[in-house]
Amino acid sequence: MQLTLDSVLLTDLYELTMLQSYFDTGMNETASFELFVRALPTGRNFLMAAGLEEIVRYLEQLRFTREDLTALSKTGRFSTPFLRSLEHLRFTGDVDAMPEGTVFFPDEPILRITAPMREAQLVESRLMNLAHFETVVASKAARCVLAAPEKLLVDFGLRRAHGAEAAWLSARASFLAGFSGTATLAAGLAFGIPVYGTMAHSYVQAHEDETQAFEQFARSQPANATLLIDTYDTEAAACKVVALAPRLAKDGISIHGVRLDSGDLGEHARRVRRILDAGGLKDVTIFASGNLDEHRLRQLYDDHAPIDGFGVGTRMNTSADAPYLDCAYKLVEYADVPRRKRSEGKATWPGRKAVYRLYRANGVMAGDWVTLARETRDGEPLLEAVMRAGKRCAPPVTLQAAREHARRQLRALPPAQRTLDLAEPYPVAISDGLRELARRLDEGRRA
Amino acid sequence: MQLTLDSVLLTDLYELTMLQSYFDTGMNETASFELFVRALPTGRNFLMAAGLEEIVRYLEQLRFTREDLTALSKTGRFSTPFLRSLEHLRFTGDVDAMPEGTVFFPDEPILRITAPMREAQLVESRLMNLAHFETVVASKAARCVLAAPEKLLVDFGLRRAHGAEAAWLSARASFLAGFSGTATLAAGLAFGIPVYGTMAHSYVQAHEDETQAFEQFARSQPANATLLIDTYDTEAAACKVVALAPRLAKDGISIHGVRLDSGDLGEHARRVRRILDAGGLKDVTIFASGNLDEHRLRQLYDDHAPIDGFGVGTRMNTSADAPYLDCAYKLVEYADVPRRKRSEGKATWPGRKAVYRLYRANGVMAGDWVTLARETRDGEPLLEAVMRAGKRCAPPVTLQAAREHARRQLRALPPAQRTLDLAEPYPVAISDGLRELARRLDEGRRA
Repeated sequence: MQLTLDSVLLTDLYELTMLQSYFDTGMNETASFELFVRALPTGRNFLMAAGLEEIVRYLEQLRFTREDLTALSKTGRFSTPFLRSLEHLRFTGDVDAMPEGTVFFPDEPILRITAPMREAQLVESRLMNLAHFETVVASKAARCVLAAPEKLLVDFGLRRAHGAEAAWLSARASFLAGFSGTATLAAGLAFGIPVYGTMAHSYVQAHEDETQAFEQFARSQPANATLLIDTYDTEAAACKVVALAPRLAKDGISIHGVRLDSGDLGEHARRVRRILDAGGLKDVTIFASGNLDEHRLRQLYDDHAPIDGFGVGTRMNTSADAPYLDCAYKLVEYADVPRRKRSEGKATWPGRKAVYRLYRANGVMAGDWVTLARETRDGEPLLEAVMRAGKRCAPPVTLQAAREHARRQLRALPPAQRTLDLAEPYPVAISDGLRELARRLDEGRRA
Repeated sequence: MQLTLDSVLLTDLYELTMLQSYFDTGMNETASFELFVRALPTGRNFLMAAGLEEIVRYLEQLRFTREDLTALSKTGRFSTPFLRSLEHLRFTGDVDAMPEGTVFFPDEPILRITAPMREAQLVESRLMNLAHFETVVASKAARCVLAAPEKLLVDFGLRRAHGAEAAWLSARASFLAGFSGTATLAAGLAFGIPVYGTMAHSYVQAHEDETQAFEQFARSQPANATLLIDTYDTEAAACKVVALAPRLAKDGISIHGVRLDSGDLGEHARRVRRILDAGGLKDVTIFASGNLDEHRLRQLYDDHAPIDGFGVGTRMNTSADAPYLDCAYKLVEYADVPRRKRSEGKATWPGRKAVYRLYRANGVMAGDWVTLARETRDGEPLLEAVMRAGKRCAPPVTLQAAREHARRQLRALPPAQRTLDLAEPYPVAISDGLRELARRLDEGRRA
């Protein structure tokens, strides 16, 4: 009863019942599916693509183990010849996608799978699960980065992330979007992300005396100690830090910082800064946490609160204001014929598409075009070849390089999109070729 | 760069830096930490405890592998004697908790860890990660169950769940709360939860002809086929199903149901029901999906929409209206001395506590008491002994038994708490003994 993260059975049942049917009728022509978002969440001006690296890893290792096939056989839903056909199934298709960290907008495909139908259909559920969540977090974290430029932002979200993988991937996605590090140790070690930590209230409470707690902790972390000073009385604790510092300094121990975690963070920070400065502790940093999101960060930033860094947890990595995106993975072409879904309110643009981005002379984004893949346009093409015939086209992009790309993307956002206020929508135009194709398909279809 | 779900390093860095300090000073007396929720999310009347079984499994297998210790050593933050002490660390403590499926309210401890301080502190991050998320999902799913009693409710949420473990645990937590099954195959197989599935729009789109798609699918799933009928025109597709059924029946194939996924679900369901009934398909069920939550379910239920079952995904398993709980894992006693945090707006009740529940003669819940563990009260004690000295007190509760407990709990909820409207808060009283202890601690503490 253990979850295996790369299990091919981590999918919706219907992927496999559809595959059984495709097997029965011999349907396995080339299919193209595109992943896109239908609409921005309320109050958002842009999204940031993420999750591609995990998706490629998933596709590379995709296979049915003997145990998987036995489990499927026991359900009684699948034929033996079909299950045998799965033994050798691998992902042999193509992937085109926006690089991680790319800013994007509704109706723009961020990823396309082109593969034999059964492969392209099978991977839908987990591919969406990965792309959706990392994009959710990167998009939220990017707003925090824009709200508090140059500040140290640390992912503090493990405890209220939605399970282990959410914590793991949100450490990655927030760093990609510009965060400075994470408190989640395993993720930091695995991804090479700087790991930060302070102390808990329980540590202070366990000691009879707050000063004693501070001293013990600093002696155990002689270069790195950040002391949590709000357990009882924030300003009184700041005074204790001032009194303690000279005693520690004699032993060559310096206090790195103090952390605030409750009350009016800006007001406490100002008072604590005064106490520390008056006590000769100008180098001791102030770190704040507690229910932070981009709006609280912006407010503290605009108020010039003397806070050097922030622990941003729950509201960032659950993306509390928009915990999901209205995204879809839709068939756009099968057997060389463009396809279109027309469900009410959910119609999709048909055919394999490209996205081009135009820039102003100053490097700021001016507008995007969504076109048919075979159309040519001026502008920067946003989708790149990632896999061909099941193999990567290039070595994995390092997280550091993806982060640098994200930084450049945020810098190129139009000023209106960079604010936390709702802006006029960024212009995304649909090409005439695409409109014409959609019209032809609608006319041509027999009811 | 793989996530290991039961890794002890899946924790916040500060747990380990605190442990280093506790090691340096030899502090390892018995500590009691309690997990509780500070406040209900806006619009909610109750919460449902879940996640205990995964927590016990986590505690049972807790250990540092050689690789973990090597990785920690490389960070340069920890002393060799300390790392050596971790080699033999196991969870040797006690766990008291509300059984999974228990309804609870703010300020009530749902779980208590009593263990040597280092063990009790170390487990904080992952323990909260597990308890928080499953409780979030069970609480949301329970509202869906109350909103549409007797309807088939299926977890459809893998694709927009926050990563793999979120999908996995939400299949479990929603079934616990009363859902009928899940579409997530691996979770269904692992937990013994019924697995449901239909077909995707892509399947219909890939075929030149909708009727052909329906027929192929039904022939591949001769007993189980649920046909998705909203790809182009819902009512036209229902007519195609009626025309197709006699042809399939000749071969002994029956269509199980149809699925609606867009538009006005209630209105489409009424029209489709009429078409199916007029076509002699009274036994073909109608299943609906698409942006459902407890409010949409209640509306369709109250409107008597002829819908037999619902696929409830994203909004349930991201708990979209309340994606996180204001929960905390707080030290309440150390070395036999009760402890209390007094941070602004975050003060906690000290000491090891019990929760008692009173019932009316008709079995409906009348009110809860939070008391000191050593006080005795009338009523049903809600916290049970789960582990003693690191061992389970009893074999694991089956998911089916926990689900039955949850069902009884929901039945005992006061009528006001069972509605989706915000009710008067359920009465939770704090005992005089607990108030007195808090007062004494506040008075006794030197500033």
